[in-house]
Amino acid sequence: MPDTPYLLIDLHKTGANIEAMAQTAKACGVKLRPHAKTHKLPSMAKRQLEAGASGITVAKLSEAEVMAAAGIDDIFIAYPIVTASKAERAAKLSGTIRLIVGADSYEGSLILSEAAGRAGQTLQVRLEIDTGFKRTGVPYEDAVALAQRIHALPHLNLTGIYTFRGASIGGKPTLDLERAGLEEGELMVKLAERLRAEGLPIVDVSVGSTPTGAFAARVPGVTEIRPGTYVYQDRMQAKLGVCTLADCAAVVVTTVVSRPSPDYCVVDGGSKTFATDVQPGTEPLQLQGFGHIVEFPGAVLERMSEEHGIIRLDPECPAKVGDRLHIIPNHICSTVNLHNYVYLADGERIEQVPVSARGRLE
Amino acid sequence: MPDTPYLLIDLHKTGANIEAMAQTAKACGVKLRPHAKTHKLPSMAKRQLEAGASGITVAKLSEAEVMAAAGIDDIFIAYPIVTASKAERAAKLSGTIRLIVGADSYEGSLILSEAAGRAGQTLQVRLEIDTGFKRTGVPYEDAVALAQRIHALPHLNLTGIYTFRGASIGGKPTLDLERAGLEEGELMVKLAERLRAEGLPIVDVSVGSTPTGAFAARVPGVTEIRPGTYVYQDRMQAKLGVCTLADCAAVVVTTVVSRPSPDYCVVDGGSKTFATDVQPGTEPLQLQGFGHIVEFPGAVLERMSEEHGIIRLDPECPAKVGDRLHIIPNHICSTVNLHNYVYLADGERIEQVPVSARGRLE
Repeated sequence: MPDTPYLLIDLHKTGANIEAMAQTAKACGVKLRPHAKTHKLPSMAKRQLEAGASGITVAKLSEAEVMAAAGIDDIFIAYPIVTASKAERAAKLSGTIRLIVGADSYEGSLILSEAAGRAGQTLQVRLEIDTGFKRTGVPYEDAVALAQRIHALPHLNLTGIYTFRGASIGGKPTLDLERAGLEEGELMVKLAERLRAEGLPIVDVSVGSTPTGAFAARVPGVTEIRPGTYVYQDRMQAKLGVCTLADCAAVVVTTVVSRPSPDYCVVDGGSKTFATDVQPGTEPLQLQGFGHIVEFPGAVLERMSEEHGIIRLDPECPAKVGDRLHIIPNHICSTVNLHNYVYLADGERIEQVPVSARGRLE
Repeated sequence: MPDTPYLLIDLHKTGANIEAMAQTAKACGVKLRPHAKTHKLPSMAKRQLEAGASGITVAKLSEAEVMAAAGIDDIFIAYPIVTASKAERAAKLSGTIRLIVGADSYEGSLILSEAAGRAGQTLQVRLEIDTGFKRTGVPYEDAVALAQRIHALPHLNLTGIYTFRGASIGGKPTLDLERAGLEEGELMVKLAERLRAEGLPIVDVSVGSTPTGAFAARVPGVTEIRPGTYVYQDRMQAKLGVCTLADCAAVVVTTVVSRPSPDYCVVDGGSKTFATDVQPGTEPLQLQGFGHIVEFPGAVLERMSEEHGIIRLDPECPAKVGDRLHIIPNHICSTVNLHNYVYLADGERIEQVPVSARGRLE
C-alpha cells in the first residue's frame, strides 16, 4: 500500500461513469467532448474516446500539448487565447491534430488570425458566449456583432459557439438543474439560429457541464456537451443529486496521525491534499466540511492547514492513530490538480500513474 | 518572458527578508530553523542556511528526502510520523543527515522506536505540544506524562519540544501578535522547565511562526524559531502588519484574457494558480479578494474558477485584453505548491527553477 495521503481511483466506478454519460449523449444524439480538467490523464481521455467521445476539451494550451503528445488528436481548448506567443503555439499544434480554440474578443481573435497566417495554418475557432455566469464569454446581446467581425478575419474558421455556466441560472447557483440545463441549451440554439440567419456558418453548439449536460443535451439544436467531473464524480455532484456518494470513483486515502482529544482527530492531508475552492457551508450546497469520510459519515473534516485535516468526531468514535480514513473530496477536479500521482485500482491491482497534465497553467 | 500565469520571485526582496529574520533571531540569541514549506526549494533553503539558519524545518518526510538529496543535512520534520513504513524511511534518512522528527502520541513514538531499532539507529525526537491551536500536539496538561513514556522508549532521544499556533491565542485568530508570541514562548519555556525538573533532558524549545517569531524569540528559554512565510512574505502577512506589500517577493503574473464588461475583467489564473485556503472576508483579516493587484490596487480578485480569475473593476479602469497584471497572493505557501516552476528574478535576469519539493504529500 502506498504511503498516505494519496488519491485512489476505482476504475470500475470510473468505467460505469464514463459509460453512463456516453449513453446519455448517444440517446440525445449529441456529441460528447469530455473536459479533461477532471482527470488530467491521457489514459483516461482514451477510455472516454473508446466509449464514444468525439474528442476532448481542455482549458489550457499546455494541457492540449500534453494530450496531443500522448496521441489524442481532436482537442478543443475552451479558453480564449489572446497572446502572440500562445497563438503561435496553437497554430503549431493545429498543424498536427484537429484543434479548436476559444475566442471571446476581437483583440484576441486578431492575434490568433495573425499567428495562424504566419504559420500558414487556418485555425478553427468557437466563440464563447456568456449565458449569465459572468466569467469569460462575450455578452449574449453582443455575440452577433462580434461573430461577424471574427468571421471576417483571415486564417480563422468560426465554426461554433460554446458556453459554460454549470449549475447556475442568471449568474446565481441553483439546484434546479433541469431548468438550468434546458435554458442554457435554448439560449445557445436560439443564438446559433440568429448567427446562421446572418450568414455565419455555425455548426457546433456546445454546452453543458456534469450537472446540466443531460438536460441541455435534450434541447434540439444542441450538438455537443462538455461535462468533466462525471468521470470520477465528487461530493458536490452527489449533493446536487447528479450521482450518489457510491458513484464517486476518487477518494483520498489518509492516515490518522493524532487523536489529541475525544472530540477530534487529525489526518495527514490538509489544503495541499484537498482542494479548498468549494468551501463548506456555502450556498446552495451547504456541504459540511471539506469531504465525506467513508468510515465515519457523521465526522466532519472541519478545518485544514496545509498538511493537517482536523476532523470533528463524536467522542465515542473509535478513530485512532494509524487508522486509514478514505475521504471523498468536495471538488475532485481541483483536488486532482494537487496530486502528482493517482493510484488506479482495478480490483486488487493498484497502479501508480503520474498525472501528466496536472499543474499545466499556461 | 514566460507565458502566463507564472510565479515570479524577486531575489533582492527575498534576500532582504532572509537577512531581516536572521538578524532578529541573532539579536534574540535563538536559533533560526526556517520552515521550507513556503519555498519548497533546496536552493532557497541554502540561502537561508548561508544567512545563519541552523537547519531547516519541513512538514513531510518526502520533503525531507528531497532536501537531503540536495545536500541539506540538518532537518526537522515538524510532524508526527506514525506508520511503520514512514518510520523506516525516517530511520534510513537519519543514517545520512542530522534528522529530528516530531511525535505527539505514545503509539506513534513506539512505531518510531521499533523502526529505529530495526535500522540500528537512534532517532532524535521532539514532542509536539498543543498550546491552544487544537491541531496536532499533545494537550499541554498531558505533556509531562507522555514525555516520560517516550523518554523510556529505546532507540529514541527526546531532546526537545515544539509547538505551532501562528497568529492565535486560545485557538482564536488574533491581531495581537506580540501577546500571542510572548504567551506561546512563555507556555513552552514553563513546560520545558517542568520536564527538566522531572529529569527529562529537554534541550530545544522550538516555537514561532512568521507573525509571532520575533516576539516569541524574546522569551528567555526559547531556543529556536521556525518561521516559513517570511522568505517571500504575502498579502496575509502584510495585513497582519508583519511586512509591507512592497516586501512581498512573490507575485503571480497573469494576463487579462477577457474584458466582457466595464465592471470586470478575467485573468488566466484561478484556483489552480492562486491558493484558496485563505478566503476573502474571513476574520480577523477581512482580506478583499484573493490577491492584491499591483497595477490596480482598488480592483478586487473576487471570484475564481480553476482557470479564471474574475476581477471587479472600476468601469474607468483601463485594463484590457492582453495586459499583464501582477498579483500578490493572499497565502504564498499554498500558492507555491500549485506551481511546478518558479521564475527567480535577479534584476533583469529571470531563471526558471523547478519547485522540487512541491506536491510532496507523504
